Amino acid sequence: MADLSPIRNLKLIVEYDGTAYVGWQLQADLPTVQGALARAIQRMTGEAPTLIVAGRTDAGVHALGQTTNFKTHSRTEARRFVPGLNALLPRDISVHEATEVPLTFDARHDSVSKRYRYRIYTAAHRAAHEENRAWQLRRTLDLEAMQVAAAHLVGEHDFNAFRSVECDAPHARRAMYAIDITRTLRPPVGSVIEIVFFANAFCRHMCRILAGTLVEVGIGKRTPDNMLELLTLRERTLAGVTAPPCGLTLLEVHYP
Amino acid sequence: MADLSPIRNLKLIVEYDGTAYVGWQLQADLPTVQGALARAIQRMTGEAPTLIVAGRTDAGVHALGQTTNFKTHSRTEARRFVPGLNALLPRDISVHEATEVPLTFDARHDSVSKRYRYRIYTAAHRAAHEENRAWQLRRTLDLEAMQVAAAHLVGEHDFNAFRSVECDAPHARRAMYAIDITRTLRPPVGSVIEIVFFANAFCRHMCRILAGTLVEVGIGKRTPDNMLELLTLRERTLAGVTAPPCGLTLLEVHYP
Repeated sequence: MADLSPIRNLKLIVEYDGTAYVGWQLQADLPTVQGALARAIQRMTGEAPTLIVAGRTDAGVHALGQTTNFKTHSRTEARRFVPGLNALLPRDISVHEATEVPLTFDARHDSVSKRYRYRIYTAAHRAAHEENRAWQLRRTLDLEAMQVAAAHLVGEHDFNAFRSVECDAPHARRAMYAIDITRTLRPPVGSVIEIVFFANAFCRHMCRILAGTLVEVGIGKRTPDNMLELLTLRERTLAGVTAPPCGLTLLEVHYP
Repeated sequence: MADLSPIRNLKLIVEYDGTAYVGWQLQADLPTVQGALARAIQRMTGEAPTLIVAGRTDAGVHALGQTTNFKTHSRTEARRFVPGLNALLPRDISVHEATEVPLTFDARHDSVSKRYRYRIYTAAHRAAHEENRAWQLRRTLDLEAMQVAAAHLVGEHDFNAFRSVECDAPHARRAMYAIDITRTLRPPVGSVIEIVFFANAFCRHMCRILAGTLVEVGIGKRTPDNMLELLTLRERTLAGVTAPPCGLTLLEVHYP
């Protein structure tokens, strides 16, 4: 019997297109990334896994380097899980890496930092290939103003103004290591603006509220200095809109 | 009545994700890009348009700058067709530009050159976001060998070895102005290789057969010099496989 084998801890690096899912987190009778992955693991191991995840992404949010771990009695070599799971998973989820880690490893609590990318497409009209992949805006954004605003957000701050009122973290103190904002032309028309957030951790909706607020700076609705006020007043209602989920991608999770 | 107004010629620049379509070309009871576009135009103008297109893309092939034209009695200002059609079209098709052109303009016959991009993802395992967007290969490609091979193809040649036996063009003589091959890392793992073909015109399946043959050079199955032989022998069966359609995108069409 499989469950007589010693228990092992496996870590997976997972990529997914979040469009078809109500998010990472398991919800009965609804399509979730966790549910699809757990089903594939169960078919390989015969056991229903408990998946611990680094970043519980919202409905429609994507990932290139999501990280998750689970305990199993399976004797299958760790690296065999990559082709095995890829053959069983739906085509919008893929596994890049599977490694055996110490039993104490926890993908959520052990992560020391993460990088998220928020993608915006600006043009006079919508673009077919940006559907579900970018926030499509018909405005020109002032990139320099956004970069000045972003610089105010770098450092250790209380990001309470930039988290969902439903966030259940005990506090919103986070260390933002860098925010990089770039613009590239996107043929045949329009531009893509990417905002990459690099922090020790993120509160619920934090990247999306930061992106929404930075866009309001980009269209001139707020000044860059307004960020300082938001960090001081710590009041969600004073910050900008929550940018749509389709623009957001969890790029990578770092461990010591 | 609309048809008492003088006839006009309108040119559209169209982007689409070809995944859900059996190709550009109208086919009864099957989803085609032409069909979707013609329906939207008919809803705006009340007339069933005859669409002339620069490049009839195959099933699953994408476009960023496809170009098409149609005659209409509609009095609607040309630029009003952009928001109008975008509101009526499915989300995987979008119109970037609509301009009035001389009645003699023909999107197919007047085009003087086109650029196509073929996209390849190479890694040990498949990636969710590359589904329907790249040819996914588990091989490492020798980029330099591919570039040497591509250089042999630049110039005016008879590309008969590189066209479908079903191609109905009277001959395969084409001027290839440039073939650019680049590789970029694609986090978290793997690389994306892009081959951009720039020629006066293309035969049926030409980009896909060229891409398939260049990949065979990249994996060492052919030498770069084999291209010279293929150009001389003009025999389709001696060239490489037809690369899958999902990797191909019509980037732009040029007019005098």
